Amino acid sequence: MKLIRFGEAGAEKPGVIIGDNYFDVSALVSDYNEAFFGGDGLEKLKSAIASVDLPQIDKGVRLGPALTRPSKIVCVGLNYKDHAAETNAPIPTEPILFFKATSAIVGPNDDLIIPKNSKKTDWEVELAIVIGKKASYVTEENALDHIAGYVLHNDYSEREFQIERNGQWVKGKSADTFAPIGPFIATQDEIADVHNLRLWLTVNGKTLQDGNTSNLIFNIPFMVSYISQFMTLLPGDVITTGTPAGVGLGQKPAPWYLKPGDVVELGIDGLGTSKQIVKAYAEN
Amino acid sequence: MKLIRFGEAGAEKPGVIIGDNYFDVSALVSDYNEAFFGGDGLEKLKSAIASVDLPQIDKGVRLGPALTRPSKIVCVGLNYKDHAAETNAPIPTEPILFFKATSAIVGPNDDLIIPKNSKKTDWEVELAIVIGKKASYVTEENALDHIAGYVLHNDYSEREFQIERNGQWVKGKSADTFAPIGPFIATQDEIADVHNLRLWLTVNGKTLQDGNTSNLIFNIPFMVSYISQFMTLLPGDVITTGTPAGVGLGQKPAPWYLKPGDVVELGIDGLGTSKQIVKAYAEN
Repeated sequence: MKLIRFGEAGAEKPGVIIGDNYFDVSALVSDYNEAFFGGDGLEKLKSAIASVDLPQIDKGVRLGPALTRPSKIVCVGLNYKDHAAETNAPIPTEPILFFKATSAIVGPNDDLIIPKNSKKTDWEVELAIVIGKKASYVTEENALDHIAGYVLHNDYSEREFQIERNGQWVKGKSADTFAPIGPFIATQDEIADVHNLRLWLTVNGKTLQDGNTSNLIFNIPFMVSYISQFMTLLPGDVITTGTPAGVGLGQKPAPWYLKPGDVVELGIDGLGTSKQIVKAYAEN
Repeated sequence: MKLIRFGEAGAEKPGVIIGDNYFDVSALVSDYNEAFFGGDGLEKLKSAIASVDLPQIDKGVRLGPALTRPSKIVCVGLNYKDHAAETNAPIPTEPILFFKATSAIVGPNDDLIIPKNSKKTDWEVELAIVIGKKASYVTEENALDHIAGYVLHNDYSEREFQIERNGQWVKGKSADTFAPIGPFIATQDEIADVHNLRLWLTVNGKTLQDGNTSNLIFNIPFMVSYISQFMTLLPGDVITTGTPAGVGLGQKPAPWYLKPGDVVELGIDGLGTSKQIVKAYAEN
């Protein structure tokens, strides 16, 4: 299945994509949240969909983030060799973990707001994992049983806040609008090989990132198992798995960053595309 | 007011402490969560309490964490000079921020479970701030308007996971039971001077931490304002403000850490005390 959430920000309803069309499933499930994922919601929804006529939705609708606010977004840093190299960082010997505030989550095509006082707002196309079942001390062998699906994510990062403001990285990862998640969650069965997906990102039409999940340093079962040794992953939690080369910080001969009016587009094979228009912060 | 949550883990009800007694307010408010704090819940509860007879609760009841799971726990690192010195870290020039997984939250007197494979589980008595009103780019002058109250917190930390496992600190801060929060949230009016409170911690009756919030490097209005430049603080969010000297990592002549059977007790003037019994992790 492909899960979407649609409607106005803060009042989204759950839906699904079938073929090329969008359908409303709000009569069947209340939302894609911890209770849904943790309560076999995917299986129940799959059965329910097969037996009812679903109301179709106009495809011009706004898409919200593909799940409700999770308990946490766990980020894996420097998980592609080429990205570690471009930022002059050593290849990690074990995963670097940091968090991103869940208050940063927005819909996949919502505007990216450059934070007040930011000069170094940067992009990072990433494959994100959505946890389906509580995970504590799980083995690599069992890790896939704890995954609901995968989703496209842009891990926006303010490099001065992240690196030059006395630590830790979360400081540069957590501004509002810094986590567009979507367009949809693809359940595992939708993705033939999650370790062989192209992921790309353009700014104003120019390709800057063009990688493949086959180049992940730490693969997906390893990451889920690894993180679950340090904390409990709850249903609906998000793990975002790192970005390939081509971020603003890595540009040659000199880094450059986003400015108002820029258009960022990104995509992953099988997980759709998203698009953010860059705007300056404005006082309310 | 002093807010408590009581009852079995996962099914706690909201209550208040009046004088020395506990009262059930579950007929008046559903819980101490984002909607409560963000919807003027404190003011409404204060009025409601004045006009009804509240059912009294047995004081032997289990206390849960003093608020429901917030969107985030923001931690300020090395915020007491003596603690920075004992860990051989320089005095921060601006606050170090990191997160703690909210899945770590437990009641104030629940057991502390040493994580699997942990050798360096450590203690940190801290004053935590509970956010009362959404805070984005707030000034120091206005910061107190965004605070609901204060609560006692033990920021348990696994030092190997935090420092020796390839970053970032969140890796050592997020195990289950690593965030006992309570016994109660004291609203601001309960605390005469939040910058002059003694805070202390003992292990097996021996005093190891004995500090005062007058020694905070960055004070409370500054921290709320500072953090709100990097992320939006939501009602119910927790900021934990750092620990004074005396953690296991700082012991002379050599660091030492918690073992099963140890008893950790801690307290802050005006915010009560809590007590955790240390247990080994056991497979379910």
